[in-house]
Amino acid sequence: MNGNGTPQVVTVGSMAIDSIRTPAGEAPNCLGGAAVHGSLAASFFARVGLVGVVGRDYPNEAISMLEGRGIDLAGVQRAEGETFFWKGYYEYDMGEAHSEETRLNVFADFQPQLPEAYRSAPYVFLANIHPALQLSVLEQVEKPRLTMADTMNFWISGEKDALTEVVKRVDVFFVNDAEARQYTGAMNLVQAARDILDLGPRSVIIKKGAHGAVMFTRDADDEGPLGMSYFSAPSFPLSALTDPTGAGDSFAGGFIGHIARTGDISEANMRRAIIHGSVMASFNVEDFSVRRVSRLTPDEIRARYRAFQRIVHFEALEDLEVVGPASD
Amino acid sequence: MNGNGTPQVVTVGSMAIDSIRTPAGEAPNCLGGAAVHGSLAASFFARVGLVGVVGRDYPNEAISMLEGRGIDLAGVQRAEGETFFWKGYYEYDMGEAHSEETRLNVFADFQPQLPEAYRSAPYVFLANIHPALQLSVLEQVEKPRLTMADTMNFWISGEKDALTEVVKRVDVFFVNDAEARQYTGAMNLVQAARDILDLGPRSVIIKKGAHGAVMFTRDADDEGPLGMSYFSAPSFPLSALTDPTGAGDSFAGGFIGHIARTGDISEANMRRAIIHGSVMASFNVEDFSVRRVSRLTPDEIRARYRAFQRIVHFEALEDLEVVGPASD
Repeated sequence: MNGNGTPQVVTVGSMAIDSIRTPAGEAPNCLGGAAVHGSLAASFFARVGLVGVVGRDYPNEAISMLEGRGIDLAGVQRAEGETFFWKGYYEYDMGEAHSEETRLNVFADFQPQLPEAYRSAPYVFLANIHPALQLSVLEQVEKPRLTMADTMNFWISGEKDALTEVVKRVDVFFVNDAEARQYTGAMNLVQAARDILDLGPRSVIIKKGAHGAVMFTRDADDEGPLGMSYFSAPSFPLSALTDPTGAGDSFAGGFIGHIARTGDISEANMRRAIIHGSVMASFNVEDFSVRRVSRLTPDEIRARYRAFQRIVHFEALEDLEVVGPASD
Repeated sequence: MNGNGTPQVVTVGSMAIDSIRTPAGEAPNCLGGAAVHGSLAASFFARVGLVGVVGRDYPNEAISMLEGRGIDLAGVQRAEGETFFWKGYYEYDMGEAHSEETRLNVFADFQPQLPEAYRSAPYVFLANIHPALQLSVLEQVEKPRLTMADTMNFWISGEKDALTEVVKRVDVFFVNDAEARQYTGAMNLVQAARDILDLGPRSVIIKKGAHGAVMFTRDADDEGPLGMSYFSAPSFPLSALTDPTGAGDSFAGGFIGHIARTGDISEANMRRAIIHGSVMASFNVEDFSVRRVSRLTPDEIRARYRAFQRIVHFEALEDLEVVGPASD
């Protein structure tokens, strides 16, 4: 497909057709895939190039929607065969996806090839794919300012050595809490984070679903007693979730989009990036597939960012002498 | 036992001897009980009166320690027989206590009787006991400014009607996330909170262990789209927990201590109270029993409050135009 020069953010990963059932309803044959959710979220902040593969059946309306969001599709291969298909459902807790059918189709032979113009992209998001493919992308980029990778339990159990090579080489590693424990063998998340940072990344971001996300960063200004800086972000309170599919990818997309938009990789700005990631994830789960995120407005994003500020706000003690025997 | 007039905070609940085993070690025959943990935490902020029962075997050193913290023990009955004894252990996740032995002893016939001077106390914490006893305490107090109650799964399944009477009559209801779901039947915590507030309390505080705590409050200034104000507090990151026993009680004690010390029941000040509760809970788990909390200094408490501020801090967007097509 045609390209528009060097994107600010390159996202690499799956593009899928999903059939999803949740307690809120069902959505057959809708858009999915980690790279699609991630690119869409990032597209609200920065120019994104998407690297993936689709089959001949991939709907033209999907291409139009992605291009309409300004996403560069020069890195999307259209292969003979059908698009990666996933069918699954969620129970009431929405915490875990249950797979009913997975047909890799053209995704089985995916070899990410970055268009020449993408190689100098400053920000790279390696969404969840085989770690060997994530490594091949890292070989293709030239001096990115920030690279980040996501993964899943499947690669932790089956391709741990290759995954560790990825972890060693990226700046930010995304993982959920169960995966952090599985990967490191540490029950305690602080210990798990320390083990991951010891491999090389500057930051590890641990996603906790409905419990928000935390970030551990080394060599930051304020390390505190842990020897790492620590940031905790809440999740957005929703009285009903519709579909959690892609929330983690929207989170990562919002994160890297914010970083690319601001060009600031300080720990303080990564905190704002996490909030923008949390904002995008919170919209993601409000409807099936990409329905909500693809139609967002900048005003909605800004309003929810401010809502996150109110959620965590509490006042300093200032000079109030609140501790100690009461005076009256 | 002797008293010192009307306390600011009255705490009612169990006083126990615990034998605890965790992956960090073990502590046989140490001080425990919800009212003891709660009173100790509150004692750093306000004058506390403790209402409970102990047996003839309750150690004098424990009495001295509590009195040394300025806790009024006029409401503590010393009965014939042995003190409530609990023996249990925790696995590596520290999330759940496994009971090995529970001897109610003198606690089986506990009837809380408030000393005359306690009846006009402005702040009342009903720690986890039979809801009928919690109700009897509410009958004994005169126009308290703020009442709060904690409970446990045992009363939700066995004494739900009595518990609902308590919920209807207190200002703040404390519950953990699993109990909130069990009590309301709602999987979604926002819905569970709404169901609880519909019964009468102004606030419900849902404890999530390692994931922190959240507070829902109705009739606050900033209700937002939920029709309730929402505050999310993180937990403090610790690379090792020693003993979680009593953490929830220390949390509630720090909360009501702060409220009593400041005399301010606004939602904004309840947020600071939750942080002080989280501070006390985080110290509670650093050692067995009351060992860490009983030796805290005001400086340690203040420093940890400031650490909580840093944990959640992120900058506003101000006028930065971060959303929209990047100009690069």
